[in-house]
Amino acid sequence: MKSKKSNFKMKSNPFFKKKTIVRINDILNILNLKKNSNNSIINDIKTLDFANKNDITFFHSIKYKNLLDKTKSNYILTTKKYSNLIPKKKNLIIVNNVLISVSKITKLIYPKSLDDNTDDNLSKLKLQNNYRNLKHGNNVLLGKNVLLGSNCYIGHNTIIESNVKIGNNCVIGSNVIIKNSIIGNDVRILDGAIIGKKGFGFFPSKDKNLRYPHIGMVIIGNNVEIGCNNTIDRGSLSNTMIGENTYLDNQIHIAHNVQIGKNCIITAQVGFAGSAKIGNKVMIGGQAGISGHLNIGNNVQIGGGSGVIKNIPDNSKVMGYPAKDIRSFIRESK
Amino acid sequence: MKSKKSNFKMKSNPFFKKKTIVRINDILNILNLKKNSNNSIINDIKTLDFANKNDITFFHSIKYKNLLDKTKSNYILTTKKYSNLIPKKKNLIIVNNVLISVSKITKLIYPKSLDDNTDDNLSKLKLQNNYRNLKHGNNVLLGKNVLLGSNCYIGHNTIIESNVKIGNNCVIGSNVIIKNSIIGNDVRILDGAIIGKKGFGFFPSKDKNLRYPHIGMVIIGNNVEIGCNNTIDRGSLSNTMIGENTYLDNQIHIAHNVQIGKNCIITAQVGFAGSAKIGNKVMIGGQAGISGHLNIGNNVQIGGGSGVIKNIPDNSKVMGYPAKDIRSFIRESK
Amino acid sequence: MKSKKSNFKMKSNPFFKKKTIVRINDILNILNLKKNSNNSIINDIKTLDFANKNDITFFHSIKYKNLLDKTKSNYILTTKKYSNLIPKKKNLIIVNNVLISVSKITKLIYPKSLDDNTDDNLSKLKLQNNYRNLKHGNNVLLGKNVLLGSNCYIGHNTIIESNVKIGNNCVIGSNVIIKNSIIGNDVRILDGAIIGKKGFGFFPSKDKNLRYPHIGMVIIGNNVEIGCNNTIDRGSLSNTMIGENTYLDNQIHIAHNVQIGKNCIITAQVGFAGSAKIGNKVMIGGQAGISGHLNIGNNVQIGGGSGVIKNIPDNSKVMGYPAKDIRSFIRESK
Repeated sequence: MKSKKSNFKMKSNPFFKKKTIVRINDILNILNLKKNSNNSIINDIKTLDFANKNDITFFHSIKYKNLLDKTKSNYILTTKKYSNLIPKKKNLIIVNNVLISVSKITKLIYPKSLDDNTDDNLSKLKLQNNYRNLKHGNNVLLGKNVLLGSNCYIGHNTIIESNVKIGNNCVIGSNVIIKNSIIGNDVRILDGAIIGKKGFGFFPSKDKNLRYPHIGMVIIGNNVEIGCNNTIDRGSLSNTMIGENTYLDNQIHIAHNVQIGKNCIITAQVGFAGSAKIGNKVMIGGQAGISGHLNIGNNVQIGGGSGVIKNIPDNSKVMGYPAKDIRSFIRESK
Repeated sequence: MKSKKSNFKMKSNPFFKKKTIVRINDILNILNLKKNSNNSIINDIKTLDFANKNDITFFHSIKYKNLLDKTKSNYILTTKKYSNLIPKKKNLIIVNNVLISVSKITKLIYPKSLDDNTDDNLSKLKLQNNYRNLKHGNNVLLGKNVLLGSNCYIGHNTIIESNVKIGNNCVIGSNVIIKNSIIGNDVRILDGAIIGKKGFGFFPSKDKNLRYPHIGMVIIGNNVEIGCNNTIDRGSLSNTMIGENTYLDNQIHIAHNVQIGKNCIITAQVGFAGSAKIGNKVMIGGQAGISGHLNIGNNVQIGGGSGVIKNIPDNSKVMGYPAKDIRSFIRESK
Repeated sequence: MKSKKSNFKMKSNPFFKKKTIVRINDILNILNLKKNSNNSIINDIKTLDFANKNDITFFHSIKYKNLLDKTKSNYILTTKKYSNLIPKKKNLIIVNNVLISVSKITKLIYPKSLDDNTDDNLSKLKLQNNYRNLKHGNNVLLGKNVLLGSNCYIGHNTIIESNVKIGNNCVIGSNVIIKNSIIGNDVRILDGAIIGKKGFGFFPSKDKNLRYPHIGMVIIGNNVEIGCNNTIDRGSLSNTMIGENTYLDNQIHIAHNVQIGKNCIITAQVGFAGSAKIGNKVMIGGQAGISGHLNIGNNVQIGGGSGVIKNIPDNSKVMGYPAKDIRSFIRESK
């Protein structure tokens, strides 16, 4: 996975079709801003860490100041409040609401990114298919551009929509739905899991909420196990990732942009809110919840039922709601 | 939805077939009570607020005293303990256990209300169907008397049982099951959701529990989004309702008779116990739980992981287990 | 169920095929231990309480000391630390890691016990089948050696894999998956439930976790109701059991080896960790979690949202996280 992961970072999202050419003035136009004299081509919209020179990016929280200082992007959206933090040599674009503007630009660059209907380009998998040593059940549906490695097994009634890549020796259970995902080797996805639907992101609005585009994927490393009835949403601009040899029990929810490291053990009914980042060798007990945008270090143990609402450093053992050092939790609850 | 909602209140349940004629002495008979001299026709059984003159109703908790004072019903079941609270001009029917008696009467009026088998009157949806601009996937099953608006989309393996009404421009995902529901326009129901099965209601009994009849529906307003693998049970006597433009994330459970207002945002894995009432513009963080029969006001924010066990007034922000003012929660957990 | 349950205890697992003959030296050989002079036949591997004279068993925690004193087994695996607790007349087998050794022996005796692929020996159920008074929906798949009682109902898209026994008058909903299970009479299994997959058990290892064999079953008593989208895993060496007339609401997770008694009421989204033992007439509120290897007595009431992390004696009412006497919980949370 290591080498491939870095590939994914470099490339644009392979699944959503970009508009042929987008220029900076097309963007300024949809944001109702004054045109630029130099109408350069904008290649993509990316987060600060993944953006290249010709990509547009955005800065909306002081939390990401260190990423701002290192971004390669020449075009940075932000609000007036943060405008003096943007390096002088960058093209500064001041807007009232950063995320709504990002949403508009994403929709411009990826016109189909708001469309999350079920794929209707599927066809029934037949035994005389072209995949190597594939075994499969009854009523399996496969979309266009699905890559399956050798020696895979797909259960009954499973739907693999267009644009999914699955490695070798994978076992996909019954009643599984997969879309917009890249899955490593030796992965097991158990019955009823739903992987790769758009995340729960939108701007609340009185009459009809404004939906946030989701052009990210779900990327699953080698030897991962995904439990029954899990729901793993794809990323909005970045990807949802699950590292090698991590095991997930049943009924787990993973929101958009969550990144889980390697060799983690996540017990049943745990929930991860959006953009949480989990290190390697993390163990999480049943029904624990991890709030959004948190960093959980390596070798962390989180007790069952915990509610984690702040960052947790490496090698910690925490429990409780809110989660605290496990010794304090046990002492105080006597 | 506004005008329609009031319609639903007026009408009897359109889905369950009533016995042709039920008289008060039929009811007194199954309750082993003395016959009445005046054997009037009883139109229906309803909760205090929805009952009309010729409906029978019931009073079993002091919580509903204000509804008792306003009910139009002439026939009120209650226990001896509360009998002096019933207005003199009403017909008072004293029983030992109100809810068991209600259950028996419901079964008498709606003989099929205990039957919750899967609908076996389904037929495969064919492309040459009669619905306007309907797109649909493979292996879709539709019951009798299903109304679908124009421009709808239905995913693969989805089952819409008999007696469901769906508005225009709705997107129903794959592996979805819908029964006994009325769904507005522009609603999105994501993969794996199960909507409209009977609620978890019964009277415990040593050898075989006594099941409670469920003749309510699920009513979903316009622009609502229902997440993956949600379970939304239909009402027992009243309906389970979700207001316009409310968004539900994945793996949420909504029990029978729950009413959620408009413009709410409910994050993943939240659970609502039976008959909870949620106002408008309520935001609820992941994994929070709301106990049964509670009132949550408008503009309330409930933090992730909270356990709400008492009513919450308008404009409150609460968190914790049990949920309290969020400032107290944060202060005390330092 | 009573008489049958004891049968199940006596018999070997009827679903997994044993290797024809296994001798003690075959076992000592895979554990890299010195051969025995008397190379007896080993009939099976069992937990202390279920093992007979010719079965091998294991002792890995002081918690099970009373079972050790009563076990009939003549061959007991343990670590050096506990070796002096093993009665002198037993054959003592000292290993470094008891559970890894058990895993190796189970794999030796049951060569297919690690294989948990979807059953591909299914065939579509046809109306002209041999079952008595069976009604069923569309696209139902049945494995080999499936026993169905009379008057059963099976919904659409449901998969009953090989080696499942279901009693009379059962209602199985749509999109249900059942494997390795024995189900009593008058049981209702609602839509989307997944019953009998292997449990979440393995030994963490840096590159690729080592999976734990699961040769147990799920045994469900008469009159039980299993809610929508429940996940109930089968046992590893012992069985996962749900007693007569117990009702489970939606989205409940039951891990391997859990035993739930009779007449229990378990509300939505509750989770049980592995090997938890629950008495009779236990009521558990929504979203509560029960840690692994705990004993919950009879007539216990556990409030919604509770996190139970220690044994609970008979007739207790508890609530909170960690769960404590409910009066303390209410007093302290004022």
